[in-house]
Amino acid sequence: MQTSSTRDRIVVAAARLLQRQGYTGTGIKQISKEAEATLGSVYHFFPGGKEAVAIAALRHSCEEFAQLLRTALDGEDDPAKAVEACAVLLATELRASGWRDGCPVTAAALETLGEEDGERTAIQEASAAAFAEWEALVSAKLLASGFGAADAAELATTVICTLEGAEVTAQVNRDERALLLAGRHLARLVGSYR
Amino acid sequence: MQTSSTRDRIVVAAARLLQRQGYTGTGIKQISKEAEATLGSVYHFFPGGKEAVAIAALRHSCEEFAQLLRTALDGEDDPAKAVEACAVLLATELRASGWRDGCPVTAAALETLGEEDGERTAIQEASAAAFAEWEALVSAKLLASGFGAADAAELATTVICTLEGAEVTAQVNRDERALLLAGRHLARLVGSYR
Repeated sequence: MQTSSTRDRIVVAAARLLQRQGYTGTGIKQISKEAEATLGSVYHFFPGGKEAVAIAALRHSCEEFAQLLRTALDGEDDPAKAVEACAVLLATELRASGWRDGCPVTAAALETLGEEDGERTAIQEASAAAFAEWEALVSAKLLASGFGAADAAELATTVICTLEGAEVTAQVNRDERALLLAGRHLARLVGSYR
Repeated sequence: MQTSSTRDRIVVAAARLLQRQGYTGTGIKQISKEAEATLGSVYHFFPGGKEAVAIAALRHSCEEFAQLLRTALDGEDDPAKAVEACAVLLATELRASGWRDGCPVTAAALETLGEEDGERTAIQEASAAAFAEWEALVSAKLLASGFGAADAAELATTVICTLEGAEVTAQVNRDERALLLAGRHLARLVGSYR
């Protein structure tokens, strides 16, 4: 059990660091220090080093964010209200974190965009998978509320994009206004399909 | 004139590097190299070093992005079509850059969020100013189209947030689908006020 919890501590510490300072600025030594794990144990669990830890951390963060979306979406029957509830919950959590814990994957994804010319990096693949998973949760809610498959999928993409952008704006402004407006406007957009 | 063009080269090179790899991963030596300027001349124009260059670069990028928004907004009389045109133009430019030149300020802003506990960093101030300037352009278009002041300001915030998030998603997916959908949905949202 000790080994399992050490791995968890490494993943959670890496996830927080990626969220707060991005991939480039996060070193494996800092991860080891914050996780209260030796550098040797970090490499024991993640022989691939920093990139491998980061992928595991992004997966962990993706699931954490998905759980938040599920909580908000499941709390409202009406799909428009459910989408707005996501924005409100994000605003509450963001303020509680001192505006620090925003989207867990955006910074890491953006920093690695210019690195190569053809293929996506593993970090970008993990980021794209996270966006797709979040979209699927919103899409499922819309489908269950009677939306057609194409509308549900398309709206879900815009809902996640808008929450994403509003989260960044709220963080930079240290003010939840952008998230609350995004929630209201997304509810209006979803409501316009009925 | 030589000194002026050297300063311009430094600013433009720094802007591209920030856009493609963020703030943390961009060193002043790399800026000097890409700008074909000596390190001495970088410090001559920017005694404040990397942060000072970055602020000037973010202002330059902010204006570049504002120009793109103006082009799209001015090209359509109808406000819903004008907002959609912004998304379409962003998609075209993003694809043309090989998915690299996205929002010039997001990565830099996100990387510096976790650095301090109270005050915003100068980088975040510059990012917030950029978002506000872009919102003002969209808001002015909506006002000129007969929207009330509150609706115009609120919609403008959501338009910029949504374009922002869709740009990140398009970059990560190397596909403009998210931007084109965002454009259509924003047009529908704006149109719903008439």
